[in-house]
Amino acid sequence: MNDCAAVDRETAKSPRPFNVQVHTIVATIVQKFGGTSVGTIERIKAVAARAVRTKLAGNRVVVVVSAMAGETNRLLGLAGEISTHPHHREIDVLISSGEQVSIGLVALAICELGHEARSFLGHQVRITTDDSHGMARIQDIDASAVHDALDAGNIVVVAGFQGTNAAGQITTLGRGGSDLSAVAMAAALKADSCEIYTDVDGIYTTDPRICSDARKIERITFQEMLELASLGAKVLQTRSVEFAMKYGVPLHVRSSWEESEGSWVVPEEEGMEGAVVTGIAYDRKMAKITVDAVPDKPGMVGGLLQPLGAAGINVDVIIQNSSVKNQTAVSFTIASNEAERATKLAREVAAGLGCGEVTCDTRVAKVSVVGAGMRSEPGVAVKMFETLGQAGVNIQMIATSEIRISCLIGERYTELAVRELHDAFGLATE
Amino acid sequence: MNDCAAVDRETAKSPRPFNVQVHTIVATIVQKFGGTSVGTIERIKAVAARAVRTKLAGNRVVVVVSAMAGETNRLLGLAGEISTHPHHREIDVLISSGEQVSIGLVALAICELGHEARSFLGHQVRITTDDSHGMARIQDIDASAVHDALDAGNIVVVAGFQGTNAAGQITTLGRGGSDLSAVAMAAALKADSCEIYTDVDGIYTTDPRICSDARKIERITFQEMLELASLGAKVLQTRSVEFAMKYGVPLHVRSSWEESEGSWVVPEEEGMEGAVVTGIAYDRKMAKITVDAVPDKPGMVGGLLQPLGAAGINVDVIIQNSSVKNQTAVSFTIASNEAERATKLAREVAAGLGCGEVTCDTRVAKVSVVGAGMRSEPGVAVKMFETLGQAGVNIQMIATSEIRISCLIGERYTELAVRELHDAFGLATE
Repeated sequence: MNDCAAVDRETAKSPRPFNVQVHTIVATIVQKFGGTSVGTIERIKAVAARAVRTKLAGNRVVVVVSAMAGETNRLLGLAGEISTHPHHREIDVLISSGEQVSIGLVALAICELGHEARSFLGHQVRITTDDSHGMARIQDIDASAVHDALDAGNIVVVAGFQGTNAAGQITTLGRGGSDLSAVAMAAALKADSCEIYTDVDGIYTTDPRICSDARKIERITFQEMLELASLGAKVLQTRSVEFAMKYGVPLHVRSSWEESEGSWVVPEEEGMEGAVVTGIAYDRKMAKITVDAVPDKPGMVGGLLQPLGAAGINVDVIIQNSSVKNQTAVSFTIASNEAERATKLAREVAAGLGCGEVTCDTRVAKVSVVGAGMRSEPGVAVKMFETLGQAGVNIQMIATSEIRISCLIGERYTELAVRELHDAFGLATE
Repeated sequence: MNDCAAVDRETAKSPRPFNVQVHTIVATIVQKFGGTSVGTIERIKAVAARAVRTKLAGNRVVVVVSAMAGETNRLLGLAGEISTHPHHREIDVLISSGEQVSIGLVALAICELGHEARSFLGHQVRITTDDSHGMARIQDIDASAVHDALDAGNIVVVAGFQGTNAAGQITTLGRGGSDLSAVAMAAALKADSCEIYTDVDGIYTTDPRICSDARKIERITFQEMLELASLGAKVLQTRSVEFAMKYGVPLHVRSSWEESEGSWVVPEEEGMEGAVVTGIAYDRKMAKITVDAVPDKPGMVGGLLQPLGAAGINVDVIIQNSSVKNQTAVSFTIASNEAERATKLAREVAAGLGCGEVTCDTRVAKVSVVGAGMRSEPGVAVKMFETLGQAGVNIQMIATSEIRISCLIGERYTELAVRELHDAFGLATE
């Protein structure tokens, strides 16, 4: 925008009545396509066509791609036939070949459309990571070779999901790694935006499968997106949003199949006129463990939970009932796939500490109301509790952050709660 | 062998009556496995087991592998759906992923057997080539990283067929490239031998499908192998044998499925007691073009053949009939898949030079007798011509090198000629 203003002033100073030169502002755009978006040759051609259109509109274009849908699982299946506990370093060598196939094919498809394309593997970019094979963290990106290729007129095609450690060995970034590659490339290139192409056309106020009048969100802050992502909205991985927030890379989540604008995830701006509540998230993959008859003395809750943390079990919401006869009850939530292990461990610990019975309830869900505007709007929590109460939904636990209020409820009430809250906060209307 | 002798002298000088220490001579062995040998998970496990056995026998082991059988064609098929004239550089990115899958799986299989393995891609070795994507030539191998990995106790698994150019882009070595990778690795590592594992258990005195009493050759010189390879024996590519000869790397061609010794391809040694004739080769993929009524004046043959060479058509054997009425006929052979193009071109050129009719005969074959011993044995050619004559096989053209005599014959006589020659030179008996 500053460049624009400068051009305007320049034009005003020395007016050229004839053949006024149009100064095009060249933007750098990173476009990320997941496995489904490059899952067939037809779709790969569509990806190439979109990249070419973006370039013809005057942009520098970097395409980041995942492996073709199903390929990573096929390769892991082969490894599984060889070893039940395969070597992480060699697994990374194996599965990173999937993205290599994708970049070759996308580059070929761009060339076939008459444009120059140049593919880059992780080590060619180069994307440097730590040594944690299978879940490596990006440490540095030297984007100079990519800049050179862009300056030479190429559309650059980068293999997502992969990097290289200091010793030159291939690493992979783990779940959601290609999103992270795209955001990191955008940050390194100081790109104007990072477009994340998905099966859906944007981020919705809630799950459209539950709430038919869910509305596409035009703009959402990184903080709000983080709360929605970690609460079960699967469009963007938390790591990618955190990375984009840290480096201020605007994300544009949009459909691989349509041309329409999607949803923008952006830094919070001063005076941003946002709705008080932006979206309703839910998570059914919860379990609640309750420990009865916990002696009411200092250190008991810590004593109960420390062994779970040491075992790598992440505890989410915790409540402690008020004390009766010097005994209390402690409840906490965990991911449902940890329920069995956590219950067994909690029983051992509880017995050691002289606590009572340990029960586990997997028929629970968490519904959350998210909105940056609720910081300055105190009535949101009350309205949430009232709405759930009027619908006959009992609230078992409550947790809050600055921009989120979450309630644990019975799992069978999930759809009802989401619909009532979506309606109560007026999210369906523009 | 020198080291062996040194150890023996050492032992003799200072005899140790008790607990005599056994000096194991550590050899470095490169083992190359083609696509069929790594075509299934079971076969990959067999490759790993063989590498481990070789290591347990006290050797340093480098395994070079091709893509799993069918994989390169699958990838080229995908590229073919995108482009009919795909970009060579991006094709190399695409197809080199096949070897990446193989090295990952072989390394995993070795680890599963409880041994350390470390995979290397072409750029990790690093194998530097020129820029000729799809048919790159190896310029240099820096084997220091591989040496380090071997020193650390690893079995090293190297991706065949691929290298990297000076700009860090992936290149591939073309047909037979994995053999070449293995031989070049062996040369760079100063390995004691390079084992080429194939579907057959060695190099035979002729094609066993034609001659049931064909015999496996124990030792053959590089020069003999070159004559056999270029004449249609498909076990080893010419480029690999040339490379091995240049760097003196002994090749051991042996079966992927059996433990028995195969055939050794070695430098010619002083006083090597070889058979006069080592093998009989044949090639059916020949075509003979004859140009009639060629004016018998200087430069005519060159004028006929130069345009073919310029068009990339390789001319093999050439004969010119004796002149009658200042006219002669010129015949030459080419690969049969070039027959149509070459005939068309020869007709244009012949017309321009005032020559007569141009005919092409694709029903021809070349049979060759090969043997380093024939240098000092003048009777081989006569015996070959007599043998063919007695069998009623007409010789159309003759070509010779120092260690080879080739005859062009009618294609339908191929099997007959091969069998009669194999018998006449006593190749079936030890």
